Amino acid sequence: MARIAVVAGDGIGPEVVGEARKVVDAVLPGVEVTEYDLGAARYHRTGEVLPDSVLAELAGHDAILLGAVGDPTVPPGVLERGLLLKLRFAFDQYVNLRPSRLWPGVASPLAAVKPGEVDLVVVREGTEGLYAGAGGSLHRGTPAEIATEESLNTRHGVERVIRDAFARAARRERRKVTLVHKTNVLTHAGSLWSRTFEVVAAEHPDIATEYQHVDAAAMFLVTQPQRYDVVVTDNLFGDILTDIAAAVTGGIGLAASGSINPDGTYPSMFEPVHGSAPDIAGRGVADPVAAVLSAALLLDQLGHADVAARITAAVSAELAARSPEVAVRTAEVGDRIAAQAVG
Amino acid sequence: MARIAVVAGDGIGPEVVGEARKVVDAVLPGVEVTEYDLGAARYHRTGEVLPDSVLAELAGHDAILLGAVGDPTVPPGVLERGLLLKLRFAFDQYVNLRPSRLWPGVASPLAAVKPGEVDLVVVREGTEGLYAGAGGSLHRGTPAEIATEESLNTRHGVERVIRDAFARAARRERRKVTLVHKTNVLTHAGSLWSRTFEVVAAEHPDIATEYQHVDAAAMFLVTQPQRYDVVVTDNLFGDILTDIAAAVTGGIGLAASGSINPDGTYPSMFEPVHGSAPDIAGRGVADPVAAVLSAALLLDQLGHADVAARITAAVSAELAARSPEVAVRTAEVGDRIAAQAVG
Ligand SMILES: CC(C)[C@H](C(=O)O)[C@@H](O)C(=O)O
Ligand SMILES: CC(C)[C@H](C(=O)O)[C@@H](O)C(=O)O
Repeated sequence: MARIAVVAGDGIGPEVVGEARKVVDAVLPGVEVTEYDLGAARYHRTGEVLPDSVLAELAGHDAILLGAVGDPTVPPGVLERGLLLKLRFAFDQYVNLRPSRLWPGVASPLAAVKPGEVDLVVVREGTEGLYAGAGGSLHRGTPAEIATEESLNTRHGVERVIRDAFARAARRERRKVTLVHKTNVLTHAGSLWSRTFEVVAAEHPDIATEYQHVDAAAMFLVTQPQRYDVVVTDNLFGDILTDIAAAVTGGIGLAASGSINPDGTYPSMFEPVHGSAPDIAGRGVADPVAAVLSAALLLDQLGHADVAARITAAVSAELAARSPEVAVRTAEVGDRIAAQAVG
Repeated sequence: MARIAVVAGDGIGPEVVGEARKVVDAVLPGVEVTEYDLGAARYHRTGEVLPDSVLAELAGHDAILLGAVGDPTVPPGVLERGLLLKLRFAFDQYVNLRPSRLWPGVASPLAAVKPGEVDLVVVREGTEGLYAGAGGSLHRGTPAEIATEESLNTRHGVERVIRDAFARAARRERRKVTLVHKTNVLTHAGSLWSRTFEVVAAEHPDIATEYQHVDAAAMFLVTQPQRYDVVVTDNLFGDILTDIAAAVTGGIGLAASGSINPDGTYPSMFEPVHGSAPDIAGRGVADPVAAVLSAALLLDQLGHADVAARITAAVSAELAARSPEVAVRTAEVGDRIAAQAVG
């Protein structure tokens, strides 16, 4: 049975992860869970974000489920870089997966978009590009200061994530992959991405392809999100585009994500896109849907596609049945989804 | 009297620029215009995009008005880099100005946003960052290929564009500047931008400030574009955010832009954000509004704020009076705006 590490984290993290675990326990009894206490509290207590010993223990699990980390008392960037980005790089999580669906019952901010019409997934590269940490500065704090940030891209890294995108498209109905980059300005990296995309596309004659510049894609995500099926793009473009995709499908409050090492050499990590929301923490009013959907992505990755699909369908039913007048109660949402998913 | 260089360009460029000139001539008779034939046609005829002699001649003008360049027959990137980016760098056009207003009569794709509610301007840095052209590749075409793109940022370049943003905010009603970057990942450039922003903000205690990560800003532009007044950001983030801002205010078809050298050492260039739209070229149906608004930005930059405001008001009246059932006729739109602006 699967061995999962749970990092509940800060703020509403423990509440929403609690419901995700409730749902998983209901549909797949026997999953082994180890809890890891990481996040703001541990940082304040010990000064540590992710000790090597914990990293080594996490490596022994099949997957990681994370609630949320972050707190106004921790300097910005410390937990993001020390925990989230550290795990992505240490565990070679090169597929950053972000599905966006407009669920029945959820209002899009876009007037012309109806539930069911948007169903896209962004396959964002997770281990290269401007996230490599290659940069520096000179003459800091003086009028002569310069600062650089370098985007590092390898054929190895680009090819494997593009292959993953095509493999996902092959399992979907519309079978289409859109490459997003900025080839007219970032000519070196853009050329590497384009040429590699063409090579992989040629091996998949049954999959439709298109290319868009990132500025155009950002615009079309607003005017016509229906047009996308699978989008593959680099780390930073993916960061931006997935937040737009979440916004047009009802907000990051509903968005799930996975940082995946498809080879299975290391554990993949799954987490809601929303933050720790300290303002509403501890009141039992946080919506656990994104955490539950993240758990479904996790189970899907571990080979339990059937169970994952049942959870996803239960979430869909929950959202469709919601009335905007009734406030969300975290535990009740978890109860209903669990009951529905068990069937 | 002002000496303006006009580059009508390709596709619908000549049509929309023709109307912009009609409006300028009506409200400010005597502007001296020199036409420059640059774009796809010249490229095909001579192989040249922007000869040094033409660059030198352009430098002798007070400003440049450009229609649109680009054609499917020209390899992607050639005209963009050889003409648009070349001018931005050669003429040190460090303020890339992109106002976005939701005009009365224009429908936003956003259900909750009403005309008059969105009135923001993005001050995008125009001469640094990932647009510097610093990058390269090794082992091209082999499995060992790597490609890099480097973002170059100087205190000099960052400070001057931030100062420009604050100066613009000081002239606006809401007096607010939002800095957008990705300081939690791009720590070196992010730190330079943040520290410089704080220095300039301290000199403007009457201007409200906020900071947002680029992914959050992309999301809020979709869920709450009303919150922005002046946004200052780097070259690539600005490229993406301005297309989102255009999308939520009715599309790039209405968006104007200026690539400005505020020091006046070199001419600034003004152009509609839309492309050359070869599919509708020559039929007299292109909407000249973005070109007319670009001409208004040009006149404003040259010190004719009153005339620019009259043109902008005339555009607003034109858009408010439009009926979605009646097709746009390029020349008639220009006639109406010119008549209205003359008053
Ligand atoms: C927290 C931050 C480092 C992270 C990123 O930029 O990848 C976040 O925005 C995300 O998308 O997961
Ligand atoms: C054509 C291209 C090089 C340009 C840019 O990226 O700046 C365009 O997208 C723009 O925004 O003016």
